[in-house]
Amino acid sequence: MALRTRRPVVHSITNPVAIALAAGVLQAVGARPVMAQAAEELEEIVRGAAGVTINIGMPTAERAETMRRAAGLAHRHGRPWVLDPVGVGGSAYRRDLAHALIAEMPAVIRGNADEILVLAEIDRPVGGIGIDAETSADAALPAARALARQTGAVVAVTGTVDHVTDGVQFCAIANGHPMMTRVSGLGCALSCLVGATLAVEPDPMAASVLALVLLGVAGEVAAETAQGPGSLPAAVVDALYALDRPTLERKAQTR
Amino acid sequence: MALRTRRPVVHSITNPVAIALAAGVLQAVGARPVMAQAAEELEEIVRGAAGVTINIGMPTAERAETMRRAAGLAHRHGRPWVLDPVGVGGSAYRRDLAHALIAEMPAVIRGNADEILVLAEIDRPVGGIGIDAETSADAALPAARALARQTGAVVAVTGTVDHVTDGVQFCAIANGHPMMTRVSGLGCALSCLVGATLAVEPDPMAASVLALVLLGVAGEVAAETAQGPGSLPAAVVDALYALDRPTLERKAQTR
Amino acid sequence: MALRTRRPVVHSITNPVAIALAAGVLQAVGARPVMAQAAEELEEIVRGAAGVTINIGMPTAERAETMRRAAGLAHRHGRPWVLDPVGVGGSAYRRDLAHALIAEMPAVIRGNADEILVLAEIDRPVGGIGIDAETSADAALPAARALARQTGAVVAVTGTVDHVTDGVQFCAIANGHPMMTRVSGLGCALSCLVGATLAVEPDPMAASVLALVLLGVAGEVAAETAQGPGSLPAAVVDALYALDRPTLERKAQTR
Repeated sequence: MALRTRRPVVHSITNPVAIALAAGVLQAVGARPVMAQAAEELEEIVRGAAGVTINIGMPTAERAETMRRAAGLAHRHGRPWVLDPVGVGGSAYRRDLAHALIAEMPAVIRGNADEILVLAEIDRPVGGIGIDAETSADAALPAARALARQTGAVVAVTGTVDHVTDGVQFCAIANGHPMMTRVSGLGCALSCLVGATLAVEPDPMAASVLALVLLGVAGEVAAETAQGPGSLPAAVVDALYALDRPTLERKAQTR
Repeated sequence: MALRTRRPVVHSITNPVAIALAAGVLQAVGARPVMAQAAEELEEIVRGAAGVTINIGMPTAERAETMRRAAGLAHRHGRPWVLDPVGVGGSAYRRDLAHALIAEMPAVIRGNADEILVLAEIDRPVGGIGIDAETSADAALPAARALARQTGAVVAVTGTVDHVTDGVQFCAIANGHPMMTRVSGLGCALSCLVGATLAVEPDPMAASVLALVLLGVAGEVAAETAQGPGSLPAAVVDALYALDRPTLERKAQTR
Repeated sequence: MALRTRRPVVHSITNPVAIALAAGVLQAVGARPVMAQAAEELEEIVRGAAGVTINIGMPTAERAETMRRAAGLAHRHGRPWVLDPVGVGGSAYRRDLAHALIAEMPAVIRGNADEILVLAEIDRPVGGIGIDAETSADAALPAARALARQTGAVVAVTGTVDHVTDGVQFCAIANGHPMMTRVSGLGCALSCLVGATLAVEPDPMAASVLALVLLGVAGEVAAETAQGPGSLPAAVVDALYALDRPTLERKAQTR
């Protein structure tokens, strides 16, 4: 795969819970992760990267400023970038931060159904908090389309079935394993993986689908041997590292 | 167990060494971890949580301020919270921080014998640094009782045998495995687990004992298959995820 | 080994990607890791440590200031310390930071070939970016010698074969496994391990060689059972914990 031959440098600003797993996922597919955060070096780092991921989890005033700068630099220097609006429904602070970042034109927004509904400012469907993950992902489809049209970004909503849309086209990906939802940081690592696929695949729809299939198939393979959600993350990294194109094509469930 | 059916949101301010493991432990028992730290969102986050854990490990001026605010918010809004005074004997800065936090009325203080001795400002028993972990835990019992009476908190001292006291009642828990002491972050993850049990069990004695038994039994199960202290943390998370009430009751060693 | 009997306190300022793995590596060999960063407690912490490691990865203005202070304190109080110049070629900010730290007389500088070439301010050999890791490590030998002479530090350049020099003597270590290069944070953990060996072995050449052999042999043992770069780090920690002197001596490949 192009990731393994081109070994793109991928810059990620992600949260401390996910940072080691995200670096492992990026390395496993051949990318070279850089996790820089200092304002003083951000321009050199962003310009040296082929893809950028910004995750708003665990913001601080300092990290939020870094995120805004990195998004601006990525936009200005033409580096494709992914926004992961982690927990955007949890506080007004995160909502404001996410909207400021969206103004810098992310190529992809990757979140779960709740996060996409909050960003699109569409009221939750009746049932709200009680609805389960699958219903939720489907229920967020109108919000995903609206958000894609408002922002120009491809929107990837992940759940039991993942959905990717640019506002017109749709793709559904049915890979993955339920135990993946019990691993903190796997969603954040997925967003970093989109940053990597964007570095080698200029079409953000195709890049998003590739990342979702890669992680979903790796999760299925990993779940065959992992003993639970504790051993799953390492098994996912092992599976990504070993994954070959025939396995990927045989197991991909897109429509 | 109530954690699995109620899935409480648990807010943890913990140190970077332990953060991924703590999130994994919380998810494994069914809790929903939130690791927010920004002053700007702290009130919304604390109010949205059913339990809070504050760990003073790796403080910075900014994180110490966040800890003080979060403790104040938890106290004001009636959210039960746990203090983990990691390394409180290591610097005057941590001692001052821990005492400022204790003024905000933690429901539980969870530490090792040295930490509890320092907090209670009782001189170490003769033998001091040279004494081994078990002696140490027992030697800290008078300090634990004194600290519980001074602060109104339940005090949990962990060691080869763990002790929990509210200043009057005592409970000893003899679960766990010696290799657990070689895993950085497992003590911090335990404190986060107390934050989770407090969210579903209003009695802080009972909540502390439940968390200690859960992690201790999971550690025993994990040690049967783990190859060493490197593979133990993932195995503990796997064991917590698989743990059922009959196993827990059969293996619990409380008196 | 002396690490297991003396259990030195080792203070590390390292980056969030590597911090949990570094703590695990330190604990596995018997050291007691401390990861403090607050300016307010730095003097007590550095004085209480027998070895110090400073890693410039993921700097922020605040952490860079902590690094400069910790290096100054280690120098002033005679604590041997290791510099890990992670990604020093990535930005002018890191280059300036690394040079400011070197003024505080590290006992050891541990980096990969690119990092050592940048620090020595020697132009890369023809072939530059395209050259593979082994060529690179050998190609950095003149830079390593020059850097050792300029700074008075022992310089350890790691690659397929590792090289250690004080500017006059040389030692090559051929342990390790290629998959180790795919694990983020293992190089940072290695530098922390040098901080631990320095705490028990006053000769910085000998301490560096010991740490490189320890991690290299553990990596070889781990690679026999690990399923990939995801499960390798835990297996390395397990192997370090189980390593005995006969195995170490039998497998060490130094010349």
